Amino acid sequence: MTEPTLRDIRAALERIKPYAHRTPVLTCSTIDSLADARLYFKCENFQKVGAFKFRGACNAVFSLSESEASRGVATHSSGNHAQALALAARLRGIPAYIVMPENAPSVKRSAVEGYGGIVTLCKPNLASREETLAKVAAATGAEVVHPFNDYRVIAGQGTAALELLEEIPDLDAVIAPVGGGGLLSGTAICATELRPGIQVLAGEPHAADDAFRSIQAGRILPSDDPQTMADGLRTSLGELTFSIIRRLVEHIITVEEEEILQAMRLLWERAKIVVEPSGAVPLAAVLSRSAEVTGKRVGVILSGGNVDLGALPFR
Amino acid sequence: MTEPTLRDIRAALERIKPYAHRTPVLTCSTIDSLADARLYFKCENFQKVGAFKFRGACNAVFSLSESEASRGVATHSSGNHAQALALAARLRGIPAYIVMPENAPSVKRSAVEGYGGIVTLCKPNLASREETLAKVAAATGAEVVHPFNDYRVIAGQGTAALELLEEIPDLDAVIAPVGGGGLLSGTAICATELRPGIQVLAGEPHAADDAFRSIQAGRILPSDDPQTMADGLRTSLGELTFSIIRRLVEHIITVEEEEILQAMRLLWERAKIVVEPSGAVPLAAVLSRSAEVTGKRVGVILSGGNVDLGALPFR
Repeated sequence: MTEPTLRDIRAALERIKPYAHRTPVLTCSTIDSLADARLYFKCENFQKVGAFKFRGACNAVFSLSESEASRGVATHSSGNHAQALALAARLRGIPAYIVMPENAPSVKRSAVEGYGGIVTLCKPNLASREETLAKVAAATGAEVVHPFNDYRVIAGQGTAALELLEEIPDLDAVIAPVGGGGLLSGTAICATELRPGIQVLAGEPHAADDAFRSIQAGRILPSDDPQTMADGLRTSLGELTFSIIRRLVEHIITVEEEEILQAMRLLWERAKIVVEPSGAVPLAAVLSRSAEVTGKRVGVILSGGNVDLGALPFR
Repeated sequence: MTEPTLRDIRAALERIKPYAHRTPVLTCSTIDSLADARLYFKCENFQKVGAFKFRGACNAVFSLSESEASRGVATHSSGNHAQALALAARLRGIPAYIVMPENAPSVKRSAVEGYGGIVTLCKPNLASREETLAKVAAATGAEVVHPFNDYRVIAGQGTAALELLEEIPDLDAVIAPVGGGGLLSGTAICATELRPGIQVLAGEPHAADDAFRSIQAGRILPSDDPQTMADGLRTSLGELTFSIIRRLVEHIITVEEEEILQAMRLLWERAKIVVEPSGAVPLAAVLSRSAEVTGKRVGVILSGGNVDLGALPFR
């Protein structure tokens, strides 16, 4: 597959429509006043498995031919992608082999197994993850579905922006968080092709600013064990996502941990929705650069809402 | 004004439409599985001021003639009704006089003043509240708008059920929480007139079960200082709401505090929405009586989402 276009994102939306939620777009006048802009929140926290990840995983799983699909899918992940792939595979009636580090929280393992995923444990380092995944894939013939560096996944993630722009066509800008870059890449392809001239922005934690630094440097500069509460954004860009983001994204706005917490609190207190720290990063970015969006209509992709209610950061 | 009918609720919806949110209806497959029913959550936690109360207050304020309105509105409340009335009055450009007990949390007083309400403090007992309100009303000529025992307010609260039934016409049952009974009364009038044969249910904290006991006894038996985390439901029925509820509501289902907490947790963790304890009571009721709703399509009115994030009940 070559780099996806709007056409591929439209095809992805048709493919996942029977399985994924068309998530609502919410607005909040109090937050608009603070930003001095009109913000449209695309609520992927309401998506299946609680995050946009289901879109990409579902598109990948349902893109497979019958014979490919029959051997199942595989990935290494301890996060939302693992659950998303397991659920998508169950919906197609095929096995999902998930490689997880042995120190992953048991609640995450249970969640994957709850969706029917077959878990293989590995040592908690990237080499062991990749080696174990390669073994599992060789033994089963399963198709490996990378969490972001995969065109099928990127096209699937782009469907959130497609739904958003179908509902609110006249946006001046759209902003997504950036971790591995799958959501941002799909968003950028969709938005720039559907609305030439639209501004595509990204929010990234300062403490995990590999995308910001990589774009500046013109080459991938991964983060090394970044410490941010936005746990979904600790990943670094891949080659496919780097190439798309470099071309189509206007600014990557980095934000401090305190700004992430404030934005998350606003979404909970004022918009009354449960958003995880990673999902609050784009709003934090908008609020930190409100001069640049003054008076604009901005689509804000809230990426997910998976939090541990027993360990919230609010004081 | 006589007891409102569906016609009055329709008129109320036209009246408040320019000011109130048409709140979304959300579903959650995980919660549906637990209930073994199909639940449609009408999200009044997303309403202006974070609760359905804005509907009733707004209908009352915009029902006034120009000359009545010019003298303003008044009420005694320390809760969501105070904020709702202050905001509705500001939208009409008239004063709102709010009597609050002197021990009300300063955050609640600030919220009312933030909406332009003029606060008069009183002693923290019902006699002082009523006496102070009477004085304020006499001095200003303001129209008193009771939080629930007022037909204009009841008609306004019924607009939530009207929107819900417009969107999901084929409900088998609808359930609302009951405190003073304004929301439940409006819901019952709307639902039974629009869908003859629909079941109208209510959820009430066992610890504040005055509505349950009053309906059993055939006369109003107020609760005396009830202790429940569902702080919006500590109020007892009024004469107007008692008469409507007695006639139109099939069951009042009482729930324990632990059930309220569990239902609230489900809504936060699974539906990803911030709902206050009072708003979770109807879901708690559905889950505690799931045998009675098996396979049914049930509209569940989530009444509000105002919580203190610094003092959540989750462990």
